[in-house]
Amino acid sequence: PSAVSKYVVWVLYMQGLLLVAVLVTRVLSTQAIGSGIPEMKTIMRGFEMPGFLNMRTFIATIVGLTLSVGSGIPIGKEGPFVHVACMVSNGLMQLPCFKSIYLNQHHRLAIFSAACAVGVSCNFAAPIGGVMFSIEVTATYFAVSNYWRAFFSAVCGAFLFRLLAVFFTTEYTITAMFTTGFDRFPFDVSEMIAFVFVGVVCGFLGILFIWLHGVVIRFRAWLHIKFPFLQESVVLYPMIICCIVATLQYPGLIGRYMGFPPKVAIDHLFSSDPLDHQDQWDHPNVLVALCVFFSLNFIMTVFAVGLAIPAGVFVPVFLMGATFGRLVGELMLDWFPNGIDVTDPSSIIIPGGYAIVGAAALSGAVTHTVSTSVIVFELTGQIDHILPVMIAVLVANLIAQLSVPSFYESIIQIKN
Amino acid sequence: PSAVSKYVVWVLYMQGLLLVAVLVTRVLSTQAIGSGIPEMKTIMRGFEMPGFLNMRTFIATIVGLTLSVGSGIPIGKEGPFVHVACMVSNGLMQLPCFKSIYLNQHHRLAIFSAACAVGVSCNFAAPIGGVMFSIEVTATYFAVSNYWRAFFSAVCGAFLFRLLAVFFTTEYTITAMFTTGFDRFPFDVSEMIAFVFVGVVCGFLGILFIWLHGVVIRFRAWLHIKFPFLQESVVLYPMIICCIVATLQYPGLIGRYMGFPPKVAIDHLFSSDPLDHQDQWDHPNVLVALCVFFSLNFIMTVFAVGLAIPAGVFVPVFLMGATFGRLVGELMLDWFPNGIDVTDPSSIIIPGGYAIVGAAALSGAVTHTVSTSVIVFELTGQIDHILPVMIAVLVANLIAQLSVPSFYESIIQIKN
Repeated sequence: PSAVSKYVVWVLYMQGLLLVAVLVTRVLSTQAIGSGIPEMKTIMRGFEMPGFLNMRTFIATIVGLTLSVGSGIPIGKEGPFVHVACMVSNGLMQLPCFKSIYLNQHHRLAIFSAACAVGVSCNFAAPIGGVMFSIEVTATYFAVSNYWRAFFSAVCGAFLFRLLAVFFTTEYTITAMFTTGFDRFPFDVSEMIAFVFVGVVCGFLGILFIWLHGVVIRFRAWLHIKFPFLQESVVLYPMIICCIVATLQYPGLIGRYMGFPPKVAIDHLFSSDPLDHQDQWDHPNVLVALCVFFSLNFIMTVFAVGLAIPAGVFVPVFLMGATFGRLVGELMLDWFPNGIDVTDPSSIIIPGGYAIVGAAALSGAVTHTVSTSVIVFELTGQIDHILPVMIAVLVANLIAQLSVPSFYESIIQIKN
Repeated sequence: PSAVSKYVVWVLYMQGLLLVAVLVTRVLSTQAIGSGIPEMKTIMRGFEMPGFLNMRTFIATIVGLTLSVGSGIPIGKEGPFVHVACMVSNGLMQLPCFKSIYLNQHHRLAIFSAACAVGVSCNFAAPIGGVMFSIEVTATYFAVSNYWRAFFSAVCGAFLFRLLAVFFTTEYTITAMFTTGFDRFPFDVSEMIAFVFVGVVCGFLGILFIWLHGVVIRFRAWLHIKFPFLQESVVLYPMIICCIVATLQYPGLIGRYMGFPPKVAIDHLFSSDPLDHQDQWDHPNVLVALCVFFSLNFIMTVFAVGLAIPAGVFVPVFLMGATFGRLVGELMLDWFPNGIDVTDPSSIIIPGGYAIVGAAALSGAVTHTVSTSVIVFELTGQIDHILPVMIAVLVANLIAQLSVPSFYESIIQIKN
């Protein structure tokens, strides 16, 4: 087949998957659209959201999310997972034996807070970070007595999730998802300046991301008022976005550098091996590959998370942060090829450590949470970079929280 | 000098230090006595504790704690550290520039909650676990907006604490306190049964500890009523306890197995090397050495934490848990010398992992917290045992929370 027909089939395949996702969501329940975390935050504040937790929305979220993630557009699944966990717990509470829990609002919200924790934890096999993240994004005041109940649920979820990986023999035993193998000299104290720099830039990148996302949503609303026929055609906009994403990921063009799944990319970026050992990063200049990967992903994600499908924001932002961090790490390695303290041969720059710092800092800035630092330790199975990660996350949060509402808050503001 | 005079000097030295600690606390401020966490919990609930945070109590706590810990009796310092951090923040808020914070109760409690986090974090260089532990032991409802402020303070504290270690060149760079070096095969899935067993036993040991501590305190109160002259002589009881502890730690007797500081003992117990490489554990049967160390420490700690000095409970209990866990781990190693899966040479039992699980489970059971699991990761710098640790901590908590109030709650109940 000719190059053109290959390209057309590639684009149509992605568009087909996304089209079904959009239609299923449209027909079954438009409540399944988006991350679900802003709505859960509203519910946890004591408001009712009719239809948000019923069976139609459940099916729409599951089917829509599976197809959208399968299509390859850069969206996350942690928000819809939280939504699904809450719908499952809502369904369980409708059973006669648990009806008394449902009728007591205090108990119902405690169950939902545990469900939110489970949703995040299953996603990353990160029970501690999952509980903390879910508290940060959904709660305003938190009852400490609910705390260990949420932990219990989250550990069960994470344990089962990783145990399945052992049973299906992709892993020998229970391990972290993105196991890193850094040596025991993680960083020199003077590298803290570079880590703080990563935190500062990630703070500003977070502001830019939230601002751009708002601009895109408002521009679409303006277009819908100006050209009412656009509002009728719900599939036109997703198909255009999908066509652009498919083109960028097409292997015949720059897809070699763009078209691999987030799990693989994060694994490479966190790795202690040089990037150019991997085929995907084998560009004459790895810095250029990282820059292209970062900027195109940034723009694609801004558009993709605004589509009318179940779509989270965490993993794409996490990936962007990891890319930016790795970029800084590779620059540092170029600058100090023998480490900062040249007298000590074990003191070398580890670019993978910068990727971890960047991932935690950018996802922390966009979601206004500090628990992303815990999630990265649980994801990588290494805690050596704890202080750089914490400091970068705090700096990024400080900058982002002073300037813009969090991604989830901004959605609540746009919707109301 | 004869063996007897050596022994007398040994006992008198310990007694002298403790005597000054008791007298300083008695004369300056009896508010410095005990852990301080129960009182902070009361303050965080909105009650006033006159004199608990003033300058006299500050000096009494600092001097009393230094001398008591120096004397070698098995007490912790995390409770008094929390108390000191709160007194420092209270003092700062008396300055004219911060007076407005002090006058607003909401802001004042937010500062105290950050101070509690700093107190725990500085102790272990564990910012995340410190924040979570301080929330669990002092708060009932927690404002999520205070969360990252507490993190910020805790990271600053932990960073400075570890940075001082770099500057004073005891460490090459910023690392965890009890760095472990386990291989990347942490445990076989079927070992989970043994980890759950550790959790169950630690839950019951926690109940026993809290119950015995209450019995000792009530027995002393009964003695004071029966024999009023005992109440006059505040130094008699501490001197008797100190004499027993000093005898047990005396190098000429069994002190070789008992008389080394908790930091060294925890380092050995968590280590992946066999214990009998260390002189302190070089007994014909290491299991006997562990049993003796555990049981004598258990009894000594029950008495020591009830003395009229500034004394925490966390580290002694943590050490006991580590000893019990290591005991189970050594038994498992005897039972399965080639690992559970004999076909896989890399799958061997790591007794140090059991020590980590036991330490987290027992300290979690006594304090009714699950964040001890986070503290152990930050202390050891390894997160591979996350699921066994979490599950054991949850099991131990479940057993302890259903039966007795936490150690801190039981003190509040005894005092009121």
